[in-house]
Amino acid sequence: MPKTIDVTELVLRDAHQSLMATRMAMEDMVPACADIDQAGYWSVECWGGATFDSCIRFLNEDPWERLRQFRKLLPNSRLQMLLRGQNLLGYRHYEDSVVDRFVDKAAENGMDVFRVFDALNDIRNLRRSIAAVRRTGKHAQGTICYTVSPLHAPGDFVEMAEKLLELGCDSICIKDMAALLKPQAAFDIVKGIKETCGQAVRVHVHVHATTGVTLVSLMKAIEAGADCVDTAISSLSLGPGHNPTESLVEMLDGTGFETKLDRHRLIKIKKYFAGIRPRYKEFLSNITGVETEIFDSQIPGGMLSNMESQLKQQGAGARMEEVLLEVPKVRADAGFPPLVTPSSQIVGTQAVFNVMMGRYKVMTGEFADLMLGYYGETIGPREPTVVALAVKQAGKAPINGRPADLLKPEWHELRDAAVAVPGCNGSDEDVLTYAMFPKVAPQFFPARDQGPKNLGKDPSAQPAAAAAPAKAPSVENGKGAVHTTITYDVKCNGKTHKVTVAPAQ
Amino acid sequence: MPKTIDVTELVLRDAHQSLMATRMAMEDMVPACADIDQAGYWSVECWGGATFDSCIRFLNEDPWERLRQFRKLLPNSRLQMLLRGQNLLGYRHYEDSVVDRFVDKAAENGMDVFRVFDALNDIRNLRRSIAAVRRTGKHAQGTICYTVSPLHAPGDFVEMAEKLLELGCDSICIKDMAALLKPQAAFDIVKGIKETCGQAVRVHVHVHATTGVTLVSLMKAIEAGADCVDTAISSLSLGPGHNPTESLVEMLDGTGFETKLDRHRLIKIKKYFAGIRPRYKEFLSNITGVETEIFDSQIPGGMLSNMESQLKQQGAGARMEEVLLEVPKVRADAGFPPLVTPSSQIVGTQAVFNVMMGRYKVMTGEFADLMLGYYGETIGPREPTVVALAVKQAGKAPINGRPADLLKPEWHELRDAAVAVPGCNGSDEDVLTYAMFPKVAPQFFPARDQGPKNLGKDPSAQPAAAAAPAKAPSVENGKGAVHTTITYDVKCNGKTHKVTVAPAQ
Repeated sequence: MPKTIDVTELVLRDAHQSLMATRMAMEDMVPACADIDQAGYWSVECWGGATFDSCIRFLNEDPWERLRQFRKLLPNSRLQMLLRGQNLLGYRHYEDSVVDRFVDKAAENGMDVFRVFDALNDIRNLRRSIAAVRRTGKHAQGTICYTVSPLHAPGDFVEMAEKLLELGCDSICIKDMAALLKPQAAFDIVKGIKETCGQAVRVHVHVHATTGVTLVSLMKAIEAGADCVDTAISSLSLGPGHNPTESLVEMLDGTGFETKLDRHRLIKIKKYFAGIRPRYKEFLSNITGVETEIFDSQIPGGMLSNMESQLKQQGAGARMEEVLLEVPKVRADAGFPPLVTPSSQIVGTQAVFNVMMGRYKVMTGEFADLMLGYYGETIGPREPTVVALAVKQAGKAPINGRPADLLKPEWHELRDAAVAVPGCNGSDEDVLTYAMFPKVAPQFFPARDQGPKNLGKDPSAQPAAAAAPAKAPSVENGKGAVHTTITYDVKCNGKTHKVTVAPAQ
Repeated sequence: MPKTIDVTELVLRDAHQSLMATRMAMEDMVPACADIDQAGYWSVECWGGATFDSCIRFLNEDPWERLRQFRKLLPNSRLQMLLRGQNLLGYRHYEDSVVDRFVDKAAENGMDVFRVFDALNDIRNLRRSIAAVRRTGKHAQGTICYTVSPLHAPGDFVEMAEKLLELGCDSICIKDMAALLKPQAAFDIVKGIKETCGQAVRVHVHVHATTGVTLVSLMKAIEAGADCVDTAISSLSLGPGHNPTESLVEMLDGTGFETKLDRHRLIKIKKYFAGIRPRYKEFLSNITGVETEIFDSQIPGGMLSNMESQLKQQGAGARMEEVLLEVPKVRADAGFPPLVTPSSQIVGTQAVFNVMMGRYKVMTGEFADLMLGYYGETIGPREPTVVALAVKQAGKAPINGRPADLLKPEWHELRDAAVAVPGCNGSDEDVLTYAMFPKVAPQFFPARDQGPKNLGKDPSAQPAAAAAPAKAPSVENGKGAVHTTITYDVKCNGKTHKVTVAPAQ
């Protein structure tokens, strides 16, 4: 009997986030839900930070209502979300009681599986949210952000898996946002987790397709014992997105592994989204092929284009090579954090500043916070001379404890502020929306009654992708998956400068 | 020590054939040659039927001159070509002495590796050309066309490998034009060849990327002992093309296998062709994602679009479903030939005729020939009732022998006809050009002096791909990689009808 490999379908969240700037309207997902619900997926990912943000910022959709709709439309499916640990779906650390309330409300509105991660892989930033999920009785998936550095070996990821299991996680996810997970590493890590933590521990693998090698990595992960892998239906796959679900199914033919997916349903889902995709032409990623230079530079594609536009805005496009050489140095000074949101933006921007103004002459507030421990611990030690500069420039002391321990109870304060906003309905859900997006929620609440906006357009009425208008939306506070203009208060020799840097995506 | 995996680079032949209708001008390849020559490839594929055809039909280039230029530009590289066995680069069987002369001249002009295949996998159609290659002292690569049917098992391909080795082939190629080769089958066939024929037998694997699974197939083929795999530089890869060379390199990291390719050179080659690709926008394939329905229908993408346009031209676009059901029946009746040029066109067109006019009421001349053995033997028996109909409609008897045995010596006749064409320079090369393309050569010879035409255009001056003009060129005689309007003489109850069917690609 072949072993069954479970599949998480990404089309309702990460696929359109990666390929069309998170712009897909709920209206365009509804018709596919009946087939998705019956196709035999282990779970359907459908909620996360960027989709929540995009709902209130661009689509005039209440993200909680979207969740409730998914719950109704996918009655037989596990709904899955991506949760940024102590950051929830926002860009700062929240005090523990806010974390608890968010998880309670997400579970109450229909969420089944919480994939919980921290950008620095700091277990302390995951503890509270994982405990909160466990209390609801839902599935807590502890997540390891995969990265590559001179300090990261497969054993480190296995060790993190052990710690996550000690917290009571129901499964482990290896999350490879930058498509850096090569086949042998995938095999070694999954094998290591299974051998160290037990064959019964469920291991899920999430990879992007950007570098072109990761379907092979899924094969090797499966051979090593992985239980579930993430894919996206083919018509919304590849490029900076994910491996095609149908290709995974076919790949396993005769190997001793098989998915239980219904191919007939998959074809229907594929055809449906093939029709939807052109409606979002103006938001589509320009990347359709593969990009393997990421392996050398270890700089994800999104970060690269971000730095390029920062440099261009400062009339220094020609200095890109210098910045590319500077990034690994800045990352090393910071103790080799994984380069993912928000650490990728923080490190990348600091590298640009170093090249433009001299090394650490000007430090962004976020980079100083990173050096001082305000985002958590990194795998390596932070360079003491740069820490000393951060203390001086930011006027703050370094911390060693869990960042959220510095926060005072804030729920009542957040509630008071939220209900004062016109259009706030007074629910805990609205308070949480406000808490996570304090600048966007005040625009969304009063406009909510106007109903959803669908940004999709008849393809014949749209310009070609190459001539597309700016894709990048504005940002909550300079960190996050959806962001444009970022203004930093830069302190230099006691004077404060406003420094504005350029679009992202 | 990791085992070295050799790589054949496809960018100069099959990559642009698959992605941009074989239109790339020599002028646009020249600047990349120095890097290609130094990158460490085992061979560089650069010549074949479609490129030869395109040279004289569209680009006003002498294909023999192109070969000589490659020889000069790639002094350190093995040059590789694809040869259609007894068909050479044309669309009919040639008499043995013509085969000998072609191989001699190709070797003399610089060819090193001859990949020799027959669309029906009939070993008798390969014998003479392989012997001719051996006599020149060049590398004879015996090729197995991979296909899927109820009759094809891995053992059949292994058996064919044995027969090819008996002919003295220097290596074996598994050629998967339709991206049907799944990982386990790749493993089993390569393993089978190595175990049956000896570990020292060189096995090469050629796959297309269309279904999205074949980089995994290359991984499994390598694990089973494959010595060399075919890839294309990433900027001209994927879709109906091939797996990206750079992804192959990265995939092997840490696996115990490695390529000897120079990554720095690969990046240069990639960047160069990334700049060339948009110049051929109007010829670019619309397919950029993956297409897994091929596995169910076993109908390659090109054949599907071919049949669709045939039906539409006859105002019967709605009958596609019927045709899709008819194709496997026609293929079964014909003894399960692989569906590749020309058998894919022959079977597909007959399926259309069967649906439109009743089963085998009207048989194309090519299909009758296929049923009567004039293309060679197929793996399965041919349906006797259909053979009987073919005898009646075509007025010919079935044959059991090697088709080329029916041919009389024809070199002198071909030479006389060729030199009578204005502009023919009297060389054996020109005679061979005329022999293979008797309708196109008379247009090319007198125009040769005008020099090469480059069909690439400044991308800003071109319409978008979606609005591209007809891509399909006209055809020599209805069979082949580059073809449009096909006119059949259809005999029905003694009357001859001219039936014209529509564009291909």
